[in-house]
Amino acid sequence: MAKGLGHPEFQAFRPYDFKAANEDYMENVFSKPNMIVGAKSRVGIITCCDARCSPDQFFRLGENEAFVIRNGGGRTATMDVLRTIASIEILSDIKELKVIHHTDCGALSCSDDFIRSMITNNDPLMKDGPFLQGSKQWAEALTYYAFSWKKGESEREVLERSVVEDVQFLRSHPLIKPSIPITGWIFNQDNGAVEEVDCGLEDGRDPRQIELLKEQLSKTLNGEMKSIIGDIGKTAH
Amino acid sequence: MAKGLGHPEFQAFRPYDFKAANEDYMENVFSKPNMIVGAKSRVGIITCCDARCSPDQFFRLGENEAFVIRNGGGRTATMDVLRTIASIEILSDIKELKVIHHTDCGALSCSDDFIRSMITNNDPLMKDGPFLQGSKQWAEALTYYAFSWKKGESEREVLERSVVEDVQFLRSHPLIKPSIPITGWIFNQDNGAVEEVDCGLEDGRDPRQIELLKEQLSKTLNGEMKSIIGDIGKTAH
Repeated sequence: MAKGLGHPEFQAFRPYDFKAANEDYMENVFSKPNMIVGAKSRVGIITCCDARCSPDQFFRLGENEAFVIRNGGGRTATMDVLRTIASIEILSDIKELKVIHHTDCGALSCSDDFIRSMITNNDPLMKDGPFLQGSKQWAEALTYYAFSWKKGESEREVLERSVVEDVQFLRSHPLIKPSIPITGWIFNQDNGAVEEVDCGLEDGRDPRQIELLKEQLSKTLNGEMKSIIGDIGKTAH
Repeated sequence: MAKGLGHPEFQAFRPYDFKAANEDYMENVFSKPNMIVGAKSRVGIITCCDARCSPDQFFRLGENEAFVIRNGGGRTATMDVLRTIASIEILSDIKELKVIHHTDCGALSCSDDFIRSMITNNDPLMKDGPFLQGSKQWAEALTYYAFSWKKGESEREVLERSVVEDVQFLRSHPLIKPSIPITGWIFNQDNGAVEEVDCGLEDGRDPRQIELLKEQLSKTLNGEMKSIIGDIGKTAH
């Protein structure tokens, strides 16, 4: 279980000089003014905002390598994730989506009700002071996307299920093209490995959707155009 | 303006071996099994999913340095961003939020209507094939958060305004504690600099909110407890 604030194992605060770090980047790293748009790998990664869960680190990404979407838990069933992926599909080019959750995630250690009750209780003595009035109604209105636990499940089982669910949320959504593969992974902080989770798809695609797509195309395309149907669902990734 | 797919300047596709990169990370970088939770700097960054806009790069972040939220444009007025920040406020500890937009962003080069019309037209010949039926209704229901242009504005003016608006969205929201500073920035791809934008706040705070908070506390705290009121709004960052 993830350790919350106040636990003896909580990471110590250590200020970071962002300005000096950016100057160091400008002087010693930056060499590509106005880098050309379009992630080189054409891969989009959806993962957690946790500071320990950086794909730049565990995939050793260089600049302009992959699209990266990050939110609490690396959850996919949000309007923000959907509109972001749809925008990339239209404005750029994407050949695979990787959904990556991680061990020891904060979303494993709490429930939505816990977060709601902490905000609505609004203890005046909490660190950095309390919330202003009006927070209670917002706290109750939001979903926090904590992972759900089923009776008897291990942390690994909860994580694998959350990855499968989040891959399937995207796979079944009409704003994600059926030809774009979606894969599921767990970043394992025990050894640094990014481990694949079987999400019940074939190379990240749903064969039933590919059939539906071919049927849809056979009705809208004429003559020679129909030859593209055979290539649907075969994009390299 | 950002260059879209098909433009001669679009970045060439070059596959990346994510598996080999992760193995390299495990063997040559990973040394901290079960790293302790809690970003060392206590800073949260909200920025764009663009592959050229990685805070790990332009701030040279090491592991476990900062919380990072990324979506299309680095926009803040979404339920996903709000619930993610609220979760971090409750489960962890946060001392500053940095909102960072970037030059040449895709959200500068298109309108919401453009993305909607591309999906609803659903050209059967578009790359990777079309969307399945059902996409039209979703495309129309979503907001894509493209930046708005006012008559006569330069790209820089649009970007600065989007940063100010996104900082103010968070600053005025009851789920963000008034004591947490919020600052606004532009990542300038001409020179690699992360440049601060004046968002009309004082050290990232709104003095009127701090006064409201003190008033709220003076009603709920008794006796010696009232001494903490003087410290509200003075957290180091």
